[in-house]
Amino acid sequence: MTTPNVSHSVAIRVELTNSPGTLGRLTTAIGEAGGNILGLDIVEVADGIIVRDITILAADPEHAQRIREAVEGVAGVHVRSVLDRTFRLHMGGKIEVRGKSPINNRDDLSMAYTPGVARVCLEIAEKPALVHTYTIKSNSVAVVTDGSAVLGLGNIGPHGALPVMEGKAQLFKEFGGVDAFPICLNASSVEEIVEAVVAIEPAFGGINLEDIAAPKCFEIEETLASRLDIPVFHDDQHGTAVVVLAALRNAVTVVDRNLSDLTVVISGAGAAGVASAKILTEAGVGRILVSDRRGLIFNGREEFGPAKQWIAENTNQDRRMGSLAEALYGADAFIGVSGANLVTRDDIATMRTNPIVFALSNPDPEVMPETIEGLAGVIATGRSDYPNQINNVLCFPGIFRGALDANAMSITESMKLAAADAIAACVAPDELSPSYIIPSVFNRQVAQLVAEEVVKAAQREGNIRHPVV
Amino acid sequence: MTTPNVSHSVAIRVELTNSPGTLGRLTTAIGEAGGNILGLDIVEVADGIIVRDITILAADPEHAQRIREAVEGVAGVHVRSVLDRTFRLHMGGKIEVRGKSPINNRDDLSMAYTPGVARVCLEIAEKPALVHTYTIKSNSVAVVTDGSAVLGLGNIGPHGALPVMEGKAQLFKEFGGVDAFPICLNASSVEEIVEAVVAIEPAFGGINLEDIAAPKCFEIEETLASRLDIPVFHDDQHGTAVVVLAALRNAVTVVDRNLSDLTVVISGAGAAGVASAKILTEAGVGRILVSDRRGLIFNGREEFGPAKQWIAENTNQDRRMGSLAEALYGADAFIGVSGANLVTRDDIATMRTNPIVFALSNPDPEVMPETIEGLAGVIATGRSDYPNQINNVLCFPGIFRGALDANAMSITESMKLAAADAIAACVAPDELSPSYIIPSVFNRQVAQLVAEEVVKAAQREGNIRHPVV
Repeated sequence: MTTPNVSHSVAIRVELTNSPGTLGRLTTAIGEAGGNILGLDIVEVADGIIVRDITILAADPEHAQRIREAVEGVAGVHVRSVLDRTFRLHMGGKIEVRGKSPINNRDDLSMAYTPGVARVCLEIAEKPALVHTYTIKSNSVAVVTDGSAVLGLGNIGPHGALPVMEGKAQLFKEFGGVDAFPICLNASSVEEIVEAVVAIEPAFGGINLEDIAAPKCFEIEETLASRLDIPVFHDDQHGTAVVVLAALRNAVTVVDRNLSDLTVVISGAGAAGVASAKILTEAGVGRILVSDRRGLIFNGREEFGPAKQWIAENTNQDRRMGSLAEALYGADAFIGVSGANLVTRDDIATMRTNPIVFALSNPDPEVMPETIEGLAGVIATGRSDYPNQINNVLCFPGIFRGALDANAMSITESMKLAAADAIAACVAPDELSPSYIIPSVFNRQVAQLVAEEVVKAAQREGNIRHPVV
Repeated sequence: MTTPNVSHSVAIRVELTNSPGTLGRLTTAIGEAGGNILGLDIVEVADGIIVRDITILAADPEHAQRIREAVEGVAGVHVRSVLDRTFRLHMGGKIEVRGKSPINNRDDLSMAYTPGVARVCLEIAEKPALVHTYTIKSNSVAVVTDGSAVLGLGNIGPHGALPVMEGKAQLFKEFGGVDAFPICLNASSVEEIVEAVVAIEPAFGGINLEDIAAPKCFEIEETLASRLDIPVFHDDQHGTAVVVLAALRNAVTVVDRNLSDLTVVISGAGAAGVASAKILTEAGVGRILVSDRRGLIFNGREEFGPAKQWIAENTNQDRRMGSLAEALYGADAFIGVSGANLVTRDDIATMRTNPIVFALSNPDPEVMPETIEGLAGVIATGRSDYPNQINNVLCFPGIFRGALDANAMSITESMKLAAADAIAACVAPDELSPSYIIPSVFNRQVAQLVAEEVVKAAQREGNIRHPVV
């Protein structure tokens, strides 16, 4: 059983008879049921009754149910309602759209709306690039999904995906100051998704693709990037790849190696695996091997789609064949972006001494950190309850902030590399240790530093929209 | 020349030599150029120089330029910069997207985003109607345009239209508490627009169509309403029609007539004209005549599209032919939703005594109120500088607020009629006068009352989504 946690917390509203010992019996019963009490707030007191909201951390929904039953069994206690706090937080949605200035009087209205707005419209119609100056396009990103690969939940569709996209929009604003809005699409083919995104482009300054299944995500991103003159970024690919590279840079320092001498084995050839292989190649990693469900990918293994064909042609130069376990033999680093429990302690033991192990499958990693205790030089996961969490939120707010600030027309490889360097640099050399290779997701400096470096990279490349004259 | 106004106001930053009389000469020069000074704020004082921001109302851009030149001609004054305040207000856009709760720590993140969000996603995937409970869909409206008929500016395209749609989103939030986001479409055919809107439906609880040219707007609205189970509302049609009916109800009271005895002549068979004819028919207006560029519409005049065919079949029962001027002879009310200066004083003089004249073309009405002084019983325009402004903002925030609150699946005729009644009722019978038939756009009660009546109408019809069990 997992630890009681806030994401499974409940608020139980109870009536307690106002007699000695009732509260004590209640808290004891909750404790015996394994619940952690976070609060005991009084709602009202009347007629010999005290109404309290008991906020309790539970481990999972079944545990919450057992706690409820325990509470119901206490003499002198009546349960009025049980509220799941995560569902409560989601009621009515998590984001809102607001005006940046009030509309209280005729003057406000005549500048923000008619008649004043007409002059701004005409100016944009005459000089189209001004849409990036005088509208929300200067700061907006569409968080686009078809709901085909949501978190680890699979194809749950665009409606089911909406809470994730709203959360993403919230993180965009909170960490990057970007105005993001969820665009969940009733669409599934590459063509439908591309056409819908091209259609909605005018109000958006960037497109963040999210939770779209591989391999269609590759073609969608590529087609959109070529058809639109605003940044298009598939976060599951590049967000993960950028943070992986940042973490790997610091990890090699910790174990005293160099990227160029490294042999890295990537498990998983989906969105994150393909993009990680590409960015590690760009960054000069010595040798990269990628395995999918059928084992190591090598040129000629079979007919691949374009993404895996790139892997086949640009990694595994020695055309090694075999299983993931065989690939790990003598390797320096393992990057898992695949599935739970695919790697054993014995597999890790065959790697070079002090290997780097990034087991990023979520919520259950390719190998649990405790399983390889004492073996690995550095361990990272996608989880928040172990050191070194690899989390995309370290990348996407800053990289879009930078792209929008630079007025960039795309997010290029050099902008991604700059973002990775900036993230890595957030942990100072003298702070680096096996349990601190990547900054906290709550380090507010990260997005700012990433944005600054991304702006510089865009400027160096001349990847900026020409100013209106 | 129009009056100096805030929508053409400028902020001129000037350096003044700190010697007696300079400011006086400056304000005199601005006054002589016809500018109205709104403010003289000091920015800094240094080295014998005072820097001030002079905020000045101008009549139009040319006037602002003349004022600038006048300021530049004053001895001891140096112009640093001139800022158009309307453009300034639009810089960076007028709306923003924010989280409704902060994400400051691990607990916040684990409820709003991973891992907690996954449970909410799964619940929605299992019970799709819950998307209306646990996401922004419960309160969101897409403000959709293709930019084909923006204000009076014509087909300026989706980018040029964006400032209007942002302003609309601002008004939605300000007056209705609705979270609206602009969806400006790179699309022009009925099919492209319909497909794009169907594609983006999941994150929206309603669709507000805006500034889409007639006649395609009719087919787009109808098709979307049949394909989507959320309210679809073309504001240029129904927003205008609802407010016209509200104003007409009160106007007939002022001139002591009844809707059922009324002969109403509508000039214009575009979006607003067609919808007005329909809602007035629903409301029981006695006799309706509609004229377009070719004169009165009657059954058999020619092959019409579906919208005008409806007009031909359901109005003008006597199959009267002839010009707008001829139609006005003996009529009780004129409703102009067409173009500037189509009606003369002589035309109005042929109407029944104390006629009702709604000259709603904007910015230049079908006939100026001063032209028909002493003739009309009640005059209304679309302008803010005359009494009785017919403005859609009286309708759309409240009607969508009501539709969302009711969890309605569409906006029906009876909901529109209820909205019109609610707007009309905002002016109490003892307040009614020829110059007060419609509440102010800044009357915050209007949207609330409209919403309440719309909710009741939806409930009466059973036009509500079934609650999830």
